[in-house]
Amino acid sequence: MIKVAEWGTGMMGQGLLGYILDRPKDIDLCGVIVTNPAKEGKTVGELLGRPCDIKMTTDFEAVLAQKPDVVCINTQSNMDEIEPQIVPAVKAGCNVVCIAEKLSYPWISDPARAEMFDKLAKENDVTILGTGINPGFVLDALIVMWSSICLRVDSIEASRVNDLSPFGPTVMVGQGVGTTVEQFEKGVADGSIVGHIGFPESIMLIAKAIGWDIDEIVETREPIVTEIERSTQHVHVPAGGVAGCKQVGKGYSKGELKIHLIHPQQIHPQMADQSTGDYIKIVGDPNVNMANTPEIPGGKGTYASAGNYIPLLPGAPAGMQTVVDLPIPRFWAPTV
Amino acid sequence: MIKVAEWGTGMMGQGLLGYILDRPKDIDLCGVIVTNPAKEGKTVGELLGRPCDIKMTTDFEAVLAQKPDVVCINTQSNMDEIEPQIVPAVKAGCNVVCIAEKLSYPWISDPARAEMFDKLAKENDVTILGTGINPGFVLDALIVMWSSICLRVDSIEASRVNDLSPFGPTVMVGQGVGTTVEQFEKGVADGSIVGHIGFPESIMLIAKAIGWDIDEIVETREPIVTEIERSTQHVHVPAGGVAGCKQVGKGYSKGELKIHLIHPQQIHPQMADQSTGDYIKIVGDPNVNMANTPEIPGGKGTYASAGNYIPLLPGAPAGMQTVVDLPIPRFWAPTV
Repeated sequence: MIKVAEWGTGMMGQGLLGYILDRPKDIDLCGVIVTNPAKEGKTVGELLGRPCDIKMTTDFEAVLAQKPDVVCINTQSNMDEIEPQIVPAVKAGCNVVCIAEKLSYPWISDPARAEMFDKLAKENDVTILGTGINPGFVLDALIVMWSSICLRVDSIEASRVNDLSPFGPTVMVGQGVGTTVEQFEKGVADGSIVGHIGFPESIMLIAKAIGWDIDEIVETREPIVTEIERSTQHVHVPAGGVAGCKQVGKGYSKGELKIHLIHPQQIHPQMADQSTGDYIKIVGDPNVNMANTPEIPGGKGTYASAGNYIPLLPGAPAGMQTVVDLPIPRFWAPTV
Repeated sequence: MIKVAEWGTGMMGQGLLGYILDRPKDIDLCGVIVTNPAKEGKTVGELLGRPCDIKMTTDFEAVLAQKPDVVCINTQSNMDEIEPQIVPAVKAGCNVVCIAEKLSYPWISDPARAEMFDKLAKENDVTILGTGINPGFVLDALIVMWSSICLRVDSIEASRVNDLSPFGPTVMVGQGVGTTVEQFEKGVADGSIVGHIGFPESIMLIAKAIGWDIDEIVETREPIVTEIERSTQHVHVPAGGVAGCKQVGKGYSKGELKIHLIHPQQIHPQMADQSTGDYIKIVGDPNVNMANTPEIPGGKGTYASAGNYIPLLPGAPAGMQTVVDLPIPRFWAPTV
């Protein structure tokens, strides 16, 4: 039995709680920490609609005092936002798996905090890992895996074409869905439209693993303008409006494009005859030409990845680790 | 610099020697051991047709006395055949990477030797690893990797459809290409037609990684009968003759089919409108539906995989390891 606490019970946290409850003979869920006081005292059962009497609490110190082996953090995306969860969990002697995109390769966005996390984890002999479907799998770890059967890798081009239709209003705002082209450009400029978070991290994970010296990373965000009306439960996009955000990340070495990541995210891509999937092309010897269709759903893929790392963390090296440092991840079959 | 010796200079060994010579700032090639006395004293340069003055030798003790960090063994497929190379290399304190199919998961075909290798490696504080494209990657490690983004895995079906046309007469005989259906059936029965070696190993690698209890493995070999004449430089197959071997491996848990591996190998598959590729389907939540087209060439993929593990071995845990125990493998970019 691995003793696990969860911190954060939004959509991703709820998905991961389901994963945990599916493994009653493997995981001892010792506590669930919420950041929203409105959830204080409610049970996990009430939240998920399935039996579980554990009461959610904002009292993280009480939960961490039970010394869970692993704390699963599903709160925010950025390093400063997750520090208030990472630091007390590590100081309590817990391993941490966290879906914050920036944590998948924290040295690129916030090297000072990355070093601090690493030092603190080593002092407490625990492991910190950031993972998820992207960054964490499709556009980095899986590419690294494929590169292992190459004699030569000249360059990498990979894309993830997905459907945003199932997501709620927060995602629509962050991706600029429903804006005009002018509003989209303004939103990108002022940072209110962030698009995908994680390309610098994915590029650096690949570079770290295969030993490339990437010295320049360029990201662009372009509006996906729809020719016909597209709508979801949460957003209405007229013809000529913005149905999504096409994000591109490029990693260069001495001016040469080595890693080219493409991530067009939109609602109802099939209405523009756009099929969805995860695609990896390695130009080298031999070439790799992989497609996974349709794409792995982002939410499920992210909390499955986090859950499946739980059993790997207690035996992992101490410190701030990445998905390319640890053994090949794998589905954790529940004990029956 | 990693000091490397190579043992075995057939087609795979020659490919790996090329990989090694492409990394002159990373690998110190300290010796090349041949099993065929006819090659004694010839240089690697003469063998490969590129500059290298190292003389090949049957004197393995002299090469191992130089204490290479890693010995690459590319000789045979079976445990008893590789023991005479593995044992002295490990006793000399060398890590071993070996492309013998049976070594990828040695406990299934020869548990006594597997335990002996493990004990010996631990006594000498070195790592032994078996790898290759298949077993070692497409139909096991890559499947395991994909399973990590699943909340639930019900069953796995994967296939590798490849073209045998480039291979020489030994492969044609082993696969039964050019036989009649009667000769094929007889060859399978008497063991002269072996088809693919590695399905029990791939099945057990997957089972080990994801925690499934596979209690029965069934393998079948069927002739691929051609409706039209197909020929290569080495073999002529008339209409009605055998153009290849369709091998199937099934892994069951308590009577339930969990892992289904399919590997039809034939010459000129396109003449039967058969496209080639590597395919993985995971039935679960979410499903995985991956295709890599065309297939990764078996030879290149195998010696690339072996070469790319060289830098991972000196830091790996001691003992008999497998590809699912070690970090995600990755292309090793040569230092320029």
